[in-house]
Amino acid sequence: MNKYAAELLGTFWLVMGGCGTAILSGFGVGLLGISLAFGLSVLTMAYAVGHVSGAHFNPAVTLGVWAAGRFPSRDVLPYMLAQVAGGLLAGGALYLIAAASSDFDLVGSGFAANGYGEHSPGDYPLLAALICEVLMTAMFLLIILGVTSGRAPTGFAPLAIGLALTLIHLISIPVTNTSVNPARSTAVAFYVGGWAIEQLWLFWLAPLLGAVLGAGCHRLIGRE
Amino acid sequence: MNKYAAELLGTFWLVMGGCGTAILSGFGVGLLGISLAFGLSVLTMAYAVGHVSGAHFNPAVTLGVWAAGRFPSRDVLPYMLAQVAGGLLAGGALYLIAAASSDFDLVGSGFAANGYGEHSPGDYPLLAALICEVLMTAMFLLIILGVTSGRAPTGFAPLAIGLALTLIHLISIPVTNTSVNPARSTAVAFYVGGWAIEQLWLFWLAPLLGAVLGAGCHRLIGRE
Amino acid sequence: MNKYAAELLGTFWLVMGGCGTAILSGFGVGLLGISLAFGLSVLTMAYAVGHVSGAHFNPAVTLGVWAAGRFPSRDVLPYMLAQVAGGLLAGGALYLIAAASSDFDLVGSGFAANGYGEHSPGDYPLLAALICEVLMTAMFLLIILGVTSGRAPTGFAPLAIGLALTLIHLISIPVTNTSVNPARSTAVAFYVGGWAIEQLWLFWLAPLLGAVLGAGCHRLIGRE
Amino acid sequence: MNKYAAELLGTFWLVMGGCGTAILSGFGVGLLGISLAFGLSVLTMAYAVGHVSGAHFNPAVTLGVWAAGRFPSRDVLPYMLAQVAGGLLAGGALYLIAAASSDFDLVGSGFAANGYGEHSPGDYPLLAALICEVLMTAMFLLIILGVTSGRAPTGFAPLAIGLALTLIHLISIPVTNTSVNPARSTAVAFYVGGWAIEQLWLFWLAPLLGAVLGAGCHRLIGRE
Repeated sequence: MNKYAAELLGTFWLVMGGCGTAILSGFGVGLLGISLAFGLSVLTMAYAVGHVSGAHFNPAVTLGVWAAGRFPSRDVLPYMLAQVAGGLLAGGALYLIAAASSDFDLVGSGFAANGYGEHSPGDYPLLAALICEVLMTAMFLLIILGVTSGRAPTGFAPLAIGLALTLIHLISIPVTNTSVNPARSTAVAFYVGGWAIEQLWLFWLAPLLGAVLGAGCHRLIGRE
Repeated sequence: MNKYAAELLGTFWLVMGGCGTAILSGFGVGLLGISLAFGLSVLTMAYAVGHVSGAHFNPAVTLGVWAAGRFPSRDVLPYMLAQVAGGLLAGGALYLIAAASSDFDLVGSGFAANGYGEHSPGDYPLLAALICEVLMTAMFLLIILGVTSGRAPTGFAPLAIGLALTLIHLISIPVTNTSVNPARSTAVAFYVGGWAIEQLWLFWLAPLLGAVLGAGCHRLIGRE
Repeated sequence: MNKYAAELLGTFWLVMGGCGTAILSGFGVGLLGISLAFGLSVLTMAYAVGHVSGAHFNPAVTLGVWAAGRFPSRDVLPYMLAQVAGGLLAGGALYLIAAASSDFDLVGSGFAANGYGEHSPGDYPLLAALICEVLMTAMFLLIILGVTSGRAPTGFAPLAIGLALTLIHLISIPVTNTSVNPARSTAVAFYVGGWAIEQLWLFWLAPLLGAVLGAGCHRLIGRE
Repeated sequence: MNKYAAELLGTFWLVMGGCGTAILSGFGVGLLGISLAFGLSVLTMAYAVGHVSGAHFNPAVTLGVWAAGRFPSRDVLPYMLAQVAGGLLAGGALYLIAAASSDFDLVGSGFAANGYGEHSPGDYPLLAALICEVLMTAMFLLIILGVTSGRAPTGFAPLAIGLALTLIHLISIPVTNTSVNPARSTAVAFYVGGWAIEQLWLFWLAPLLGAVLGAGCHRLIGRE
């Protein structure tokens, strides 16, 4: 059970750290601060519990690692459930804190939900959002599978993976608010409801597609 | 005596680095720069003296590490005293430097003190401040206990712990100005006086509670 | 073929990460965010595929490493071709995403192309641009050759090389938009056309010259 | 001779990276970007040539390491000369590039020179500038001596030392523009002339005093 607890707590921290910074401090730290926060949430918990669960904290990562033949089929669904549960808990805790401020406006703020079309920060349509999320997740998995391969330098995987997530946010927040992680998207869409739930399918489909594509690209570079 | 000197100097640097950046340069580096400063103060001194004292620099960390059964009872109080002394020295040195500028206004600026209600940067009430500080400190301890466990990659603990403190500040400066460290709170409240002293109890209670909670969560993930 | 695929994918990520951040998010993350993005693109892929190809992602790096006697002549041209191909693919993908936004203006925005004179962000003339690009690339190679020498600490090369690229951008974006990488320059100039193609010669000449100069400086410091 | 070349090139990069960012890009990257640039210049070159010269790049560091009994007396002066020479070369190269822009104003911009009183960015008087520079350099040496001691984690010293310099700049740019390095101060004061030369004595005296104080504090924590 240890590894499921690790995935739950790690995804809790990813949503608390990344979405929490966007919701509570985004006005002050900007897109750069939010990007850093998402990356540091993964970097820190991957160093803390990576040796317990592998530190996926993301259903797309679990699928991609499985597609690359490095993860047992029987753990795919339990990992995804733990990740979604951890994300939803963090979304609830954030709601509790944020709503205590008199300035808070759940619907108006967007609560860090992912979106396309009129809900994309930069008005990017569905197709551009799809391409961007698939591409970002594919590159994320390519990096994850590379840095955790036996020939990469020991101990640096959490650093590289965390900073890859920071980079992905630096590139793509204006397009979709950046998902590449269905658990993160679900964690806040659940509280926003309405359009965020209606658009949620894309932020499951695109990251999962991208993850399988990334696992494929990894084979181009060679087996370890 | 070496380890007490290390805790004193480390906490001195945490307050000088984190609160010092907020007080002297906050207008220029923003919430992102202040968050980075708190993290780098711990990262740098933890690499420098971690092998001497364990690099707590924080009474909540000392309590949490003790609660996890990794620290001797007889050193808990001396460590806390050294931390508070180091923090107060840094607060005094900062006061000396800051007050030399003609623009300085101790009470108006807040001198980086932690607060809730009308003294929260974003007007968050007592209960939200309490929840936020407990949660942040619990996750901080969970990370600290994880990265210093025997199975985590060697040498990366100061990096992960320092960047965890940066992330905690990125999330929560608007709520309480971020404490998670009673010595840091005391170090500046002492010079501000008045409301900062009256609200100081929360920034001892919440981090200490959170630290014990974090030590408990660590058990969920497993003993090393 | 693995190493060519690694160079292609790595340069794809460098252009997608660095130029992509400039094009899609530059308004929000500023010069600091763009500088960080270029560095993190190299840091992350160098950890991921450095053990496959050496992680050049840059014709100037390939030339400099060859000039230092550390790279076989027969691979110089194939590496450069793979890098340019990867860059052009990323430029195309970025064009596809960026053009979907109604705000997009390919020519007006500059599409992150490098330039001098009236196309330098800070109006720096040709000679200053030349000196700056030669100097930056020479120091980049000096660092690369140093950190990958046998006596440098193991595992830290991707960190130091990535952050060196961040620093180079922090210094020199206002001068030329920072190239130090002919593949990166070609990758976006191809889509901008016109002036960007006319000025492209400088962003092949200066980085290649600088790389050979850097390899020479490395000899001053000693052979490993 | 290798080690002198390494110190010259390293200090060249420190001034080119740190002061260069302030002079060429300061308007765009802010105090946070400048602070990061100083740190990354040391981080990158310390990984590149640390195994050749020890990577001081700073007369105060050379004096402090000597005062701690870790550096031979006969090399103190040659190291300092190489550092000042490297700094002056970088100042000249920066002048060459910066002066090519029509916007450039050497005296008005300050050319990143250090100052106190009316030449302190935040109007801090001589005494506050002295205390701040002594304190910052003392803590810098304490960190340097700690992370390079035999018991600290292997390979992380350049990371911790570079980020310590970033932190020092985050804290103290408003006070003196931050020196803690007489070679860096001399490198730009030489081109500014006038007041910058008249105030230069402080930026030799204070860092050298601080370095000896830091070496003393290191003994409190224990010999390695």
